[in-house]
Amino acid sequence: MPRTFKATLAYDGTDYSGWQVQPSQPTVQGTLQDVLAGLEGGPVAVDGSGRTDAGVHAEGQVASFRLDNPLPPENLQRALNHRLPPAIRVLALAEAPAAFHARSSATAKTYEYRIWRENICSPFLARFVCHHPYPLDEAAMQSAATYFRGEQDFASLMASGGPDLESTVRTIFSSTLARDGAVLRYQVRGNGFLYRMVRNIVGLLFEVGRGNLAPKDITAVLAAKQRSAAGATALASGLFLMSVEYGDK
Amino acid sequence: MPRTFKATLAYDGTDYSGWQVQPSQPTVQGTLQDVLAGLEGGPVAVDGSGRTDAGVHAEGQVASFRLDNPLPPENLQRALNHRLPPAIRVLALAEAPAAFHARSSATAKTYEYRIWRENICSPFLARFVCHHPYPLDEAAMQSAATYFRGEQDFASLMASGGPDLESTVRTIFSSTLARDGAVLRYQVRGNGFLYRMVRNIVGLLFEVGRGNLAPKDITAVLAAKQRSAAGATALASGLFLMSVEYGDK
Repeated sequence: MPRTFKATLAYDGTDYSGWQVQPSQPTVQGTLQDVLAGLEGGPVAVDGSGRTDAGVHAEGQVASFRLDNPLPPENLQRALNHRLPPAIRVLALAEAPAAFHARSSATAKTYEYRIWRENICSPFLARFVCHHPYPLDEAAMQSAATYFRGEQDFASLMASGGPDLESTVRTIFSSTLARDGAVLRYQVRGNGFLYRMVRNIVGLLFEVGRGNLAPKDITAVLAAKQRSAAGATALASGLFLMSVEYGDK
Repeated sequence: MPRTFKATLAYDGTDYSGWQVQPSQPTVQGTLQDVLAGLEGGPVAVDGSGRTDAGVHAEGQVASFRLDNPLPPENLQRALNHRLPPAIRVLALAEAPAAFHARSSATAKTYEYRIWRENICSPFLARFVCHHPYPLDEAAMQSAATYFRGEQDFASLMASGGPDLESTVRTIFSSTLARDGAVLRYQVRGNGFLYRMVRNIVGLLFEVGRGNLAPKDITAVLAAKQRSAAGATALASGLFLMSVEYGDK
């Protein structure tokens, strides 16, 4: 009887073609599956709470998988971190109920987008922020961020190329922008996110910051329910999947 | 009449084969020279305060070069940072006296070596530390660090492959090891350093931390004046060139 595991992962997404396995490209899921297969002596399927795009990072991605391997979780975690590249770390590993599935069991996720506002961005941070030293009306952006809250149809913020969905309605529990030193930080927590939705929200926030849209125009962009109504997709390097929650649905 | 410039540079050395130009390898000096040649419309020779090895970082490397380009330093700095990869930043750029030379004018340099002591090293730090979660007698290492101070012959700590030298005597003004949260930080300031000397000092500190050497054994290692008396070279990823001083000789 295989055991089911829940792993909490951090990764530097810069050098990966995203989470999801792709033929002959380095991916986080593929790297994990290869390392787990080595420990298990056979193929292991790893499910993530969701895909992250190429260049997007995680401080708290969650993955689930099943193993026959009898090692205690602490030893498995140590073995995984020993074999994985330093860009991917297993922060926590625990046995989970057999029905646990990282994607379908998730009830909420939190993302964060980091914009570096100073003229020069340290080379030690450059991989982990979006560098934007140009003028932005940050107060207007803060106001605009509130318009994404609540249960809404976010079709305008879904990029093409994602999975087919029954519904583009999602509930955003919180959506806030705040200055933290040189970092302008956008944090958003919701019950689910469409393909590239967070980067498209940030793209709209940039349009507001540049004065091309007023905060209240967000309402009309969302009401249009088509991608062409929104702005550009913000760079991947600023985005972090911070945490995934598993509570009552 | 060309102007002479002093540039202060920060770089993430992970993806470079060190400071010094090498044929068909990415180097910091080579990248700078290419970008400067593009601005100048002709070849520009860049002198660094010294070489850094492959994988070694800088928070304050200093370089000098001469340009006929008439742009004010602020504009030149902006143009350089626009054209350089994000892993290399010009933190400051100023005109300098015609006799200024980043290497021969330098009077002191400070290096720092960062050892990450927790079990798990964040993927966002992994490029910028040496991860060593194993037991170390840090008090003994602190004591050992003091033995490198003063004017001494450091031949035991010079790796082969460096430039030919008249003398292997250097003066170390300060040499201290201290814990800063999860980081064990070694800082050393001296009037000059031999090839790989700092990484070889840290290699000896690791030997002391593991109990293979006592702090007072450092005296005998230095007295031997031969490389075989010392330990292994510490990993490049933990080392930073922090600053270069230009005072009275």
